[in-house]
Amino acid sequence: MTTIKDSVHDHIEVAGVAEALLDTSAVQRLRHVKQLGTVQLVYPSANHTRFEHSLGVYHLADRALGHLGVEGTEAERVRAAALLHDVGHGPYSHNIESLTHRHTGKYHDDVGGLLTQGEVGDVLRDHGLDPRRVAGLVAGEGQYGQLVSGELDVDRMDYLVRDAHHTGVPYGTIDHGRLVRELVFVDGELVLDEGNVQTAESLLLARALMNPTVYQHHVARISKAMLRRASERLLDAPDISAEQLRRMDDHELLVALRRTETTGDFADRLRTRSLYKRAVWAEIRDVPSEVFEMSHDEIRAVEQDVADDLGLAVDDVIVDVPPKPSMTESSSRVMVNGEIRRLEDQSPLVGALRTAQQNQWRLGVYCPPEETDRVGDVAADALGLDVDGALVSTVSHSVHATLDEFN
Amino acid sequence: MTTIKDSVHDHIEVAGVAEALLDTSAVQRLRHVKQLGTVQLVYPSANHTRFEHSLGVYHLADRALGHLGVEGTEAERVRAAALLHDVGHGPYSHNIESLTHRHTGKYHDDVGGLLTQGEVGDVLRDHGLDPRRVAGLVAGEGQYGQLVSGELDVDRMDYLVRDAHHTGVPYGTIDHGRLVRELVFVDGELVLDEGNVQTAESLLLARALMNPTVYQHHVARISKAMLRRASERLLDAPDISAEQLRRMDDHELLVALRRTETTGDFADRLRTRSLYKRAVWAEIRDVPSEVFEMSHDEIRAVEQDVADDLGLAVDDVIVDVPPKPSMTESSSRVMVNGEIRRLEDQSPLVGALRTAQQNQWRLGVYCPPEETDRVGDVAADALGLDVDGALVSTVSHSVHATLDEFN
Amino acid sequence: MTTIKDSVHDHIEVAGVAEALLDTSAVQRLRHVKQLGTVQLVYPSANHTRFEHSLGVYHLADRALGHLGVEGTEAERVRAAALLHDVGHGPYSHNIESLTHRHTGKYHDDVGGLLTQGEVGDVLRDHGLDPRRVAGLVAGEGQYGQLVSGELDVDRMDYLVRDAHHTGVPYGTIDHGRLVRELVFVDGELVLDEGNVQTAESLLLARALMNPTVYQHHVARISKAMLRRASERLLDAPDISAEQLRRMDDHELLVALRRTETTGDFADRLRTRSLYKRAVWAEIRDVPSEVFEMSHDEIRAVEQDVADDLGLAVDDVIVDVPPKPSMTESSSRVMVNGEIRRLEDQSPLVGALRTAQQNQWRLGVYCPPEETDRVGDVAADALGLDVDGALVSTVSHSVHATLDEFN
Amino acid sequence: MTTIKDSVHDHIEVAGVAEALLDTSAVQRLRHVKQLGTVQLVYPSANHTRFEHSLGVYHLADRALGHLGVEGTEAERVRAAALLHDVGHGPYSHNIESLTHRHTGKYHDDVGGLLTQGEVGDVLRDHGLDPRRVAGLVAGEGQYGQLVSGELDVDRMDYLVRDAHHTGVPYGTIDHGRLVRELVFVDGELVLDEGNVQTAESLLLARALMNPTVYQHHVARISKAMLRRASERLLDAPDISAEQLRRMDDHELLVALRRTETTGDFADRLRTRSLYKRAVWAEIRDVPSEVFEMSHDEIRAVEQDVADDLGLAVDDVIVDVPPKPSMTESSSRVMVNGEIRRLEDQSPLVGALRTAQQNQWRLGVYCPPEETDRVGDVAADALGLDVDGALVSTVSHSVHATLDEFN
Repeated sequence: MTTIKDSVHDHIEVAGVAEALLDTSAVQRLRHVKQLGTVQLVYPSANHTRFEHSLGVYHLADRALGHLGVEGTEAERVRAAALLHDVGHGPYSHNIESLTHRHTGKYHDDVGGLLTQGEVGDVLRDHGLDPRRVAGLVAGEGQYGQLVSGELDVDRMDYLVRDAHHTGVPYGTIDHGRLVRELVFVDGELVLDEGNVQTAESLLLARALMNPTVYQHHVARISKAMLRRASERLLDAPDISAEQLRRMDDHELLVALRRTETTGDFADRLRTRSLYKRAVWAEIRDVPSEVFEMSHDEIRAVEQDVADDLGLAVDDVIVDVPPKPSMTESSSRVMVNGEIRRLEDQSPLVGALRTAQQNQWRLGVYCPPEETDRVGDVAADALGLDVDGALVSTVSHSVHATLDEFN
Repeated sequence: MTTIKDSVHDHIEVAGVAEALLDTSAVQRLRHVKQLGTVQLVYPSANHTRFEHSLGVYHLADRALGHLGVEGTEAERVRAAALLHDVGHGPYSHNIESLTHRHTGKYHDDVGGLLTQGEVGDVLRDHGLDPRRVAGLVAGEGQYGQLVSGELDVDRMDYLVRDAHHTGVPYGTIDHGRLVRELVFVDGELVLDEGNVQTAESLLLARALMNPTVYQHHVARISKAMLRRASERLLDAPDISAEQLRRMDDHELLVALRRTETTGDFADRLRTRSLYKRAVWAEIRDVPSEVFEMSHDEIRAVEQDVADDLGLAVDDVIVDVPPKPSMTESSSRVMVNGEIRRLEDQSPLVGALRTAQQNQWRLGVYCPPEETDRVGDVAADALGLDVDGALVSTVSHSVHATLDEFN
Repeated sequence: MTTIKDSVHDHIEVAGVAEALLDTSAVQRLRHVKQLGTVQLVYPSANHTRFEHSLGVYHLADRALGHLGVEGTEAERVRAAALLHDVGHGPYSHNIESLTHRHTGKYHDDVGGLLTQGEVGDVLRDHGLDPRRVAGLVAGEGQYGQLVSGELDVDRMDYLVRDAHHTGVPYGTIDHGRLVRELVFVDGELVLDEGNVQTAESLLLARALMNPTVYQHHVARISKAMLRRASERLLDAPDISAEQLRRMDDHELLVALRRTETTGDFADRLRTRSLYKRAVWAEIRDVPSEVFEMSHDEIRAVEQDVADDLGLAVDDVIVDVPPKPSMTESSSRVMVNGEIRRLEDQSPLVGALRTAQQNQWRLGVYCPPEETDRVGDVAADALGLDVDGALVSTVSHSVHATLDEFN
Repeated sequence: MTTIKDSVHDHIEVAGVAEALLDTSAVQRLRHVKQLGTVQLVYPSANHTRFEHSLGVYHLADRALGHLGVEGTEAERVRAAALLHDVGHGPYSHNIESLTHRHTGKYHDDVGGLLTQGEVGDVLRDHGLDPRRVAGLVAGEGQYGQLVSGELDVDRMDYLVRDAHHTGVPYGTIDHGRLVRELVFVDGELVLDEGNVQTAESLLLARALMNPTVYQHHVARISKAMLRRASERLLDAPDISAEQLRRMDDHELLVALRRTETTGDFADRLRTRSLYKRAVWAEIRDVPSEVFEMSHDEIRAVEQDVADDLGLAVDDVIVDVPPKPSMTESSSRVMVNGEIRRLEDQSPLVGALRTAQQNQWRLGVYCPPEETDRVGDVAADALGLDVDGALVSTVSHSVHATLDEFN
């Protein structure tokens, strides 16, 4: 057994298949993939990695299994899946996932290929586990898949607390000890036991507060958009395939961006934190529904038009349309008076948080600071936005001051 | 200047009028009044006192004043009020406040009498402060009164964090550093600056989660009801007036209860944690509106009837009807696009939390464990409750297990 | 199983005999005995009790037993002893222990009488445990007694961390997780496993720093001496026996002191923190060896002489001669290259800490603030102290300022 | 003013020259230099960077200046120096500093060149500060240089607490709030005020415990030695100068090692944590004094001989001879009875810690795991070591288990 000291869970004991997996390069690679990507440009202490997070998820899974009374091969399989659940992440975690998905068809939890082959596959088989079933758990399949990837999975229990510890933003400080203790299986469904409506709500609320403050902070979004655009240019260069890009770690991506001529400017901007600013920051009600239907190429075409119109280079304009908000935790289940209920049917907070998320949603258009006024006008026009609310330049001075607080 | 080490804010520097007030017996008495009263019977570590809380409120007030640029006599007055804001608390803080209020007409923030007389009045006047104006601030009067007692006061910023630290329940861990920094006065109103809708929501949510988990935990409510009933009996005894009771500290109340014949049983039960149990636990929708109109004496009459009916002593039955839920923070103000907005007009969460609070509200009837079934039936009948939902005894076994988790 | 939320160890699971013991009045009484007695007058947040500490010790014992592979009745006995180890404490914990010991012959860990009789005895026997063997463990007897009371016991692991959490002084923050994990039995001796010389040193150092900063802070010592003196007067009063005093809790002692005529002044001073000050504060080298030989009565005689000489009341002068410093942890054992070694034979720090403790040791004479100069001179003379170093009044002004920092 | 959220100090307010310096690429580069280099291979959460540490040092300097009453240009200069004190660090902080020093003659605090030129120089001059004087402060020159680099500097106050927070090892948790408050200048010397001998000792003890547990953990030392050796090979390659190497960040160094043929093996080993193991681990008493006199080239010659002797490649053998231990904090000064005293003259702990450090010192020889026995014998012979104590292979099995705990 190996004991590892963790800043969040103190001592983590790693044994069995997990101990053997620890030494594989697929798992060790996660030491070089930051958990929160460009969020580090907003919260300087947020340098924690997918490696320590994966250990934390393994640890909570192990404790949940103990409370649930799951043992033997079934438990080993879940522990393996918990430790491996993030090996499919590309560099900068979610930041360039949409890009690699467009090219490879794979999201980070599509790990079948990674788990069946090579070292990891060997270790799993040596411990009597079928790699495909482990990959299934990572994808959330089956009864125990809910523990690894579901509305009440230990993944989010770890990352909320860990992100709070490393950013210094306290909102993610959930009571993971209680959550893990109160999980039960009822008719094959993973639910929180009686008396835990508030426990379930607390998980939802923690995410709802961390989201705008940390995960969707506008500076994190801008730098993520710049990183994604630069990575797209990297794929235009002759030498790098999307599959290669996906297997890089943070170091390799950053250095590749710095060394490639067409991405050097973005790399410099990211390195020196000379980031683009918002030209447009539009609420959902000011965005025509057609915009949500636009394909990647259509958005690129809008950017090109705006740039051409103003005599700018195409990479001077980035249109960032996030998907409409969703809320996984809303369908988490909790026992109420002996029945399984979906949290959204039980808690008035779910609907309100959904509305709050809608309110917080923003379409962004980013460009070099000196061009925000011009780009704002033209881009708002090109996207058919309601101009008054959308343009950052029309917002009063005091707003600017606050919005740029961490900028 | 005196520097005091605090478990929450680390070093607190106390100077000026506050340093002089520190040594008065009115302030030192707060060392002997627990912040959370009977919550200690649920969360054993929750033994912190009004004294350290008052220091914390002074500290946050001082920092807020610094950020707001308030100086001189005005600032000293606020600092004095912050340190003194709780000197009006009786033993066990809020636990017996309704009782002493019925007899003395005074709530804990009615401190005019305490501040104008004796030591405290002398110290205030020696420092050029008018005790009545300080008392006014404690009561929330005037522009600066909002800092001491209002929707965005530093009182709740301290207690949420402190109660979280000492109970171990993380939900109260708000970002008080940010809250204090973002306060501004606009047209004489204390508001949170632009970009802080979430900051305001986080305060609201912290209270919404701490409320059922800590402050209104059913075991805390039961023991509080028992303490209140015992204190009422104490006042029936010849020797103690309500005004005397109000100036006791926790030790004196506990010992008085133990030594007085008519309250000895309650005192024993509290000492050994042999608490009453719930006979009725009714949701708001199951409670007829007349019940909310009942006076103290009418409720006592119901208790007497139930007890008589079952051949029990009157103190074997306690009916606990909390006021309908309110939510002070909902009217906190925040700047949005250059305008002052009330949080409830801006945030969909406010309405949802109000609904959640309604859902969590419970009327309780408590009695010795062996009588819950009989008392439940008769009391539900006497109060005209919808029987099915209200009786704890009809709730399935698994619910009992969870409800009694900390019992 | 009962799960209890603790501010230090988060969730503590209590089962078996411990769960049954939890409800006994002997254990519940510990809720009303502060862990650190008068230290609360220096560190206002230090209001934690022997109850939560006992739960913490139980928790760490349980985890240590798990790592050591001890199970069954043996383990239950240790868990019972861990939970019960402090039931022998009188009010204000160690503060008046020397007094009650003089009258009853019993220290707090002499719990045979308490464990064999009444509720506790019944519970233990009901669970198949012999109360005398449990009492033996509390007294540190036998192989497993070392876990409960010894150089490496879980008692100190809990209190160091807990006292740090509640005072805000970080020095006690040891790595209890590691300590508990590294315990092993070798030839029946409880030792730390190979590679843990530093782990053992860290325990020693934590105590060495907490000692002067918290446990022996001069204000804590003064108020403890005042409390002890007042309690002595209480025993002079007709109604209270030493055995009764020993079974009081903090509330009862405080109220008894307030209500008894001869102790009312001390009670007032403690309540309003109008404490005595140091008239003498002498280093060990300035104290003649005869002073260490003086009996309690001889010291009282010196106090009487000093008081008479100056026309003061006898209770205006308190001579406080602590025992010469000892250092339990110095004989803790640790494996080095396959051999059991005593820490003092292995670590150069032990000797240095012993010297440091000698250096920190102080004889104190306390009296009302206005009398320090006069009392200092006469008392130093009466005790035969080297005058120059001993008198606080000769210390330069800047020293006063710092010494009184928390005063 | 910019407010930055920090995981250790919560909100850090950056204003004046520091705010302007924040945006320079010299400071932003520190985001990409890990604070603890290869320690991350032992403590997975230790991914914090020199950037956040520099902000922390700036913050503590600013607070110390406030307490010391230093204002105006003098204070701005110190704040600039605090923020800039680490810009001279190469990739992986101290890990390859000896290497770059051999080639460039510069240590990380020799920042004259970096501060006078380019952006940083411009910003300093724009704010009326002479870059050479700022560089002087970084090197510890002058009265205020002691605050930035000296026995009581704020640098170590930040890193001890920060390293504790991010590794999870609590030993570094000093009371930095008290340290910063108790600093005073006496006759131009920075000292701790009266009553702070323990405060000074606590700083010393924190470092003494963090040293073996974190900074000198054998796995961190092995990986650091491997990184240094690999970097040396990189300089043998035609394209990279030592000055270039010194200005790289962690990403660039890692990628360069991976891409260069002669360093690819080391890079792979570091990436997959397939580290060398100890063949020799010798105490200071077993090492002949000549070994301490050996030059870099002479040690390389020994490695070559050992490798040749066994038919290994030269990079299969690494001899790691750390300098004899020193203890900067031992000469920190503290006021005692109105006099400035050096801590080592006042505290018996200093000498003991010096002895403890001697005891902990180890010469290491590292090689691939399968060669430890053979390399151990030959290297011990070549270095003239006392064989019995030095060879890891002679240590009993239980030691191995513990030594490799985090391996």
